[in-house]
Amino acid sequence: MSLVRVHNFSVSLDGFGTGEGQRFEAPFGHAGHKLHDWFFATRAFHAMQGQPGGSMGIDDAFASQWGPGIGAEIMGRNKFGYQRGPWADEEWQGWWGDNPPFHTPVLVLTHHVRPALQMKGGTTFHFADESPAGALELARGLAGGLDVRIGGGPSTVRQFLAADLIDQMHVAVVPVVLGRGERLWDELEDLEQRFSIEAVSSPSGVTHLTFTRRPVE
Amino acid sequence: MSLVRVHNFSVSLDGFGTGEGQRFEAPFGHAGHKLHDWFFATRAFHAMQGQPGGSMGIDDAFASQWGPGIGAEIMGRNKFGYQRGPWADEEWQGWWGDNPPFHTPVLVLTHHVRPALQMKGGTTFHFADESPAGALELARGLAGGLDVRIGGGPSTVRQFLAADLIDQMHVAVVPVVLGRGERLWDELEDLEQRFSIEAVSSPSGVTHLTFTRRPVE
Repeated sequence: MSLVRVHNFSVSLDGFGTGEGQRFEAPFGHAGHKLHDWFFATRAFHAMQGQPGGSMGIDDAFASQWGPGIGAEIMGRNKFGYQRGPWADEEWQGWWGDNPPFHTPVLVLTHHVRPALQMKGGTTFHFADESPAGALELARGLAGGLDVRIGGGPSTVRQFLAADLIDQMHVAVVPVVLGRGERLWDELEDLEQRFSIEAVSSPSGVTHLTFTRRPVE
Repeated sequence: MSLVRVHNFSVSLDGFGTGEGQRFEAPFGHAGHKLHDWFFATRAFHAMQGQPGGSMGIDDAFASQWGPGIGAEIMGRNKFGYQRGPWADEEWQGWWGDNPPFHTPVLVLTHHVRPALQMKGGTTFHFADESPAGALELARGLAGGLDVRIGGGPSTVRQFLAADLIDQMHVAVVPVVLGRGERLWDELEDLEQRFSIEAVSSPSGVTHLTFTRRPVE
């Protein structure tokens, strides 16, 4: 059975996975780059951009687990774009240009379904109004037997955790206090009882947490 | 100038420094021992209880910084006890028996001032209705030139952080999700700009964060 995985999901010390006030100029709102500077510095991120260079080390080791074995991603609509409600601008094709870094089918969860967008490099955005379980079934159908990544944002990851649909999760805790935004951990009391959790800190200051679902007894 | 320090302050992944529902049988409410199991396992904690044994290693290295150089502690009333409002039970002398582990003056912040309590072993509980700055001035007067420890709970530490009165802080992030209780990090947006922060994870799963106040430029 293919796994459901989360990678490189960054949160602040106060548990925010994104800031307040998302808009075109600020995909993460007032958080700016704070949550992702560790990731941008890695060789894995440079490679995603088609660029040489970047750091090796523990941040890169985690960052580079993002792609291998993944056949499809599920993302919330606010990861796809900054528009809310009906699509005022159907020209919008995501934040990533004409060759997005996913290179697989991507299922965008939205109450406002629109036709699929086929991009360069193997990425196709599909749009569906589905529950987590329904979305996972669709994504598995698109993933060709490979794993499904839950790409965020915070409320999407939280909903999949609440529905107990996630097998493996990597969260990077960044030593900043955002104060406001969208929290990852709300309504997940006792989450640790369902997972084995490892923690390892990086010289960058980030702490990498890995959640591995415990076998059902 | 003596320093203002926080040690062994444990929070959950979702930022709670204590659970909901404190009462005599449950000083940390529904959190039980979850936030402090790492501390109870250390040699430093065993020594505080007058017991042999306990772990060495990184958890103990942090835990044992708690005492040396401290001349007084400031604590919130809810760390001292579970009663709220006027003291219905003046017999209450804290959770720690007749020989508390502090062995210094302890200033308890409360709107309901009462006479000082002199305990065995050098601990004296003083009670004062003061702002953080006023409390610190009193505690420095009691500390004999040594450092002052801010002992908690979460709202006391948060108020001292908000007033920018803390020089060094050790926070232990425990990999549990409490879901409810009292948060440490609220209303502290951009806290990281005032501190240098190190993070190091322990094999116990706990991540030790140390905040060192940046020099004023």
